[in-house]
Amino acid sequence: MMSAAGIAAEVRSGQRSARAFAEAAIAAIRAKDGAIGAVTRLLDERALAEADAVDAIVAAGRDPGPLAGVPYGVKDLFDVAGLPTTAGAGMRADATPAVADAEAVARLKAAGAVLIATLNMDEYAYGFVTVNAAYGTTRNPHDPARLCGGSSGGSAAAVAAGMLPLSLGSDTNGSIRIPAALTGLYGLKPTHGALPMAGVFPFVESFDDIGPFARSVADLELAWTTLSGHPREGGDPSSLSAHDGLGWAPAFAGVTVGRLDGWFRADADPELLDGLDGFADALGGGPLVELPEVARARSAAFVMTAAEGGALHLPTLRTRAMDYDPATRDRLLAGALLPAAHYVRAQRFRSWFAARAAELFERFDVLLAPAAPCVAPLIDDQTMIVGGEKVPARANIGLLTQPLSFIGLPVLTVPLLRPGRLPLGVQLVGKPGGEATLFAAAARLEAAGLTGFSEPCDVR
Amino acid sequence: MMSAAGIAAEVRSGQRSARAFAEAAIAAIRAKDGAIGAVTRLLDERALAEADAVDAIVAAGRDPGPLAGVPYGVKDLFDVAGLPTTAGAGMRADATPAVADAEAVARLKAAGAVLIATLNMDEYAYGFVTVNAAYGTTRNPHDPARLCGGSSGGSAAAVAAGMLPLSLGSDTNGSIRIPAALTGLYGLKPTHGALPMAGVFPFVESFDDIGPFARSVADLELAWTTLSGHPREGGDPSSLSAHDGLGWAPAFAGVTVGRLDGWFRADADPELLDGLDGFADALGGGPLVELPEVARARSAAFVMTAAEGGALHLPTLRTRAMDYDPATRDRLLAGALLPAAHYVRAQRFRSWFAARAAELFERFDVLLAPAAPCVAPLIDDQTMIVGGEKVPARANIGLLTQPLSFIGLPVLTVPLLRPGRLPLGVQLVGKPGGEATLFAAAARLEAAGLTGFSEPCDVR
Repeated sequence: MMSAAGIAAEVRSGQRSARAFAEAAIAAIRAKDGAIGAVTRLLDERALAEADAVDAIVAAGRDPGPLAGVPYGVKDLFDVAGLPTTAGAGMRADATPAVADAEAVARLKAAGAVLIATLNMDEYAYGFVTVNAAYGTTRNPHDPARLCGGSSGGSAAAVAAGMLPLSLGSDTNGSIRIPAALTGLYGLKPTHGALPMAGVFPFVESFDDIGPFARSVADLELAWTTLSGHPREGGDPSSLSAHDGLGWAPAFAGVTVGRLDGWFRADADPELLDGLDGFADALGGGPLVELPEVARARSAAFVMTAAEGGALHLPTLRTRAMDYDPATRDRLLAGALLPAAHYVRAQRFRSWFAARAAELFERFDVLLAPAAPCVAPLIDDQTMIVGGEKVPARANIGLLTQPLSFIGLPVLTVPLLRPGRLPLGVQLVGKPGGEATLFAAAARLEAAGLTGFSEPCDVR
Repeated sequence: MMSAAGIAAEVRSGQRSARAFAEAAIAAIRAKDGAIGAVTRLLDERALAEADAVDAIVAAGRDPGPLAGVPYGVKDLFDVAGLPTTAGAGMRADATPAVADAEAVARLKAAGAVLIATLNMDEYAYGFVTVNAAYGTTRNPHDPARLCGGSSGGSAAAVAAGMLPLSLGSDTNGSIRIPAALTGLYGLKPTHGALPMAGVFPFVESFDDIGPFARSVADLELAWTTLSGHPREGGDPSSLSAHDGLGWAPAFAGVTVGRLDGWFRADADPELLDGLDGFADALGGGPLVELPEVARARSAAFVMTAAEGGALHLPTLRTRAMDYDPATRDRLLAGALLPAAHYVRAQRFRSWFAARAAELFERFDVLLAPAAPCVAPLIDDQTMIVGGEKVPARANIGLLTQPLSFIGLPVLTVPLLRPGRLPLGVQLVGKPGGEATLFAAAARLEAAGLTGFSEPCDVR
């Protein structure tokens, strides 16, 4: 699978056509997705038309954009003109079609990218597993017997399986970071509000965000700079190379790194902690630091998620409760019935907790924490070990991501480089607006051979 | 009763001592408060000590501050070192004494002001009437058979009755503006967050604010500039005179005024609307403009108030529900039981409504609306007429103030000048941070003889 940057370079130079890449992506999906279940709708007609339009621009000698001809897919909650936005809900399979693309899709299209498919998710983004009663289970390309994580599981699996070089997902409590970690990808949950939410089906508006998945730091940054409208300074973004270690050095000079201790390390896989500690060494060393009251932060995120999600769905729950996925229905109902006092207290706690995080970021630019605490759980036994006890994976796999996103921090998830083994991921957590520093740190780790995507192979 | 500015000028020049003004204020309270019930604690010892300290500074030839020797009082929810902060609650009469003054009190003290008394309020600031089961009813100096408004009723009545030239209150849904209107005073609810809330007993943190009451624009602005730490440009604030009409002209040039229509005029006293229309003429004319969905805004403010207030009190309600004032208990209990879904929807609506207000403020600098819709209701018949129907005053008198404060806008309430008649007040509503423009408009109206405080007389 060629990188997004590589594809764009070939298309821009006329070496190969956007149509050829689109056809290859469509063929890859047809060949591979039967075993994975990442794709919900293959948009071949639209894809070929978009690709032809890019090729026409190239032929006319005009600039086709930094993502010229790059095939990508979107989680099922992005509006795609002419299609119902299902948000992973069976009850929305026949919803009124979207009249326009989501703003993020429009931005990628304007940059020359070619939308190939919509991708599976937990219903209404309320889950970490991508086991969907209406649209099926998305399997982990590294081991089809295992979960790929969620709720943006289809977005992760399609890229990890080599069907697409790039995809978009959304992250409220970890829905980009968990599937990125479990499928060995790079994934970005940006600063809250940094990317446009217009045309994205909401879940918890006070901390919903969208972001990209990719197989390399350079591809992820290319997507980020295109989506955010802030191209990296001093260069054509399509020519970035994360492996050009020196190129990144200036941005990283003077960056201070810490490792989040306590809650974040208590139950994580020892190999994951070893890898994380190696990251810290490679980034100049980083002391262990504590965020206080992380367990409460996770509880507050839970309460706010249930309450805001419940509030959003209350009118529909009143009339169509039994049409929901059983996996989401009861939690939304419970959320809709939560007393406001709990929500208000959670919100007040959030302000307090955000202030504590801001204090840490006066001393550090990047904080390291495990993403998922362990490798992907088995689909048939959705459990994991936390504190020595077997607990349900659905409810617990986000325990290290939730406390960070609900205060709006940007987090770049990077995979430990461990070919032939099940993926493990680390969160690089930044201060609000600190994405550039996160990319610099990730590129340094990638250049040092510590992180990187590994092609799936049978690891059972 | 001398103005605050006048007192400060005399004390600063050594013409008269701060002690003499403090003694006069204490004497006024002893003489008048029996019939009014504004004062809950007369702090004569502290007052005389503070006054002596100011006099010592004057004697030493140092600057005693812009409010040198100005007697004032505070609503019972400001921390005063050594006293329990009752927040109007009988159950807090023996609360642990505050270890320090509230930040606002500290700022006034640093400016030379002398704290004379704490002042009555509705329990926990949840009311518009200042009828308090534990601390009694505060009566309207213009007619002791009538309500003075609330929840900062004691703060308004003490100034209107001539006991104090200045006081501090707090305003969540109208708790400064309603009593200012009903007692014929100037009152400022500043932009949300503009004045320090440290040491102020909270009620609804997302829209609680503190602010001053005074008998003239100049005194109100003197208090505002001192509290906010932003002295008016180009002069000693203690020398301001609102009656120097020309002095204000530059600040007011180019200011555009609108009159809020619909909900805000539907049920208001015709004399009040006539007065308001006269204000618009004096300010250069102002078209009628609509804020959409004001009824919903008021509902949203109600829901958020009940939910945040209920959340704050839930732990105490669980153990001491029967110790609450019956007038607040049931509403706090109901608020604590509200489903979070309602709160979340109210909060989302608030964002939408604030955006609509911001659009209006692209075209206007000041919007005019009635404050209370009518004159002060009788204590023995707490009703008012809304839409031709007799409704409970407690629940309805804030119907024109609530939709403005819950989106954080600054509002300066000014009294119609109508000596010998019961007061009526108008809200000058500004854009966030627009206090200076509101003061300029108020001063212009005062200079034109349209607004002003009138000494109480028997109007029954």
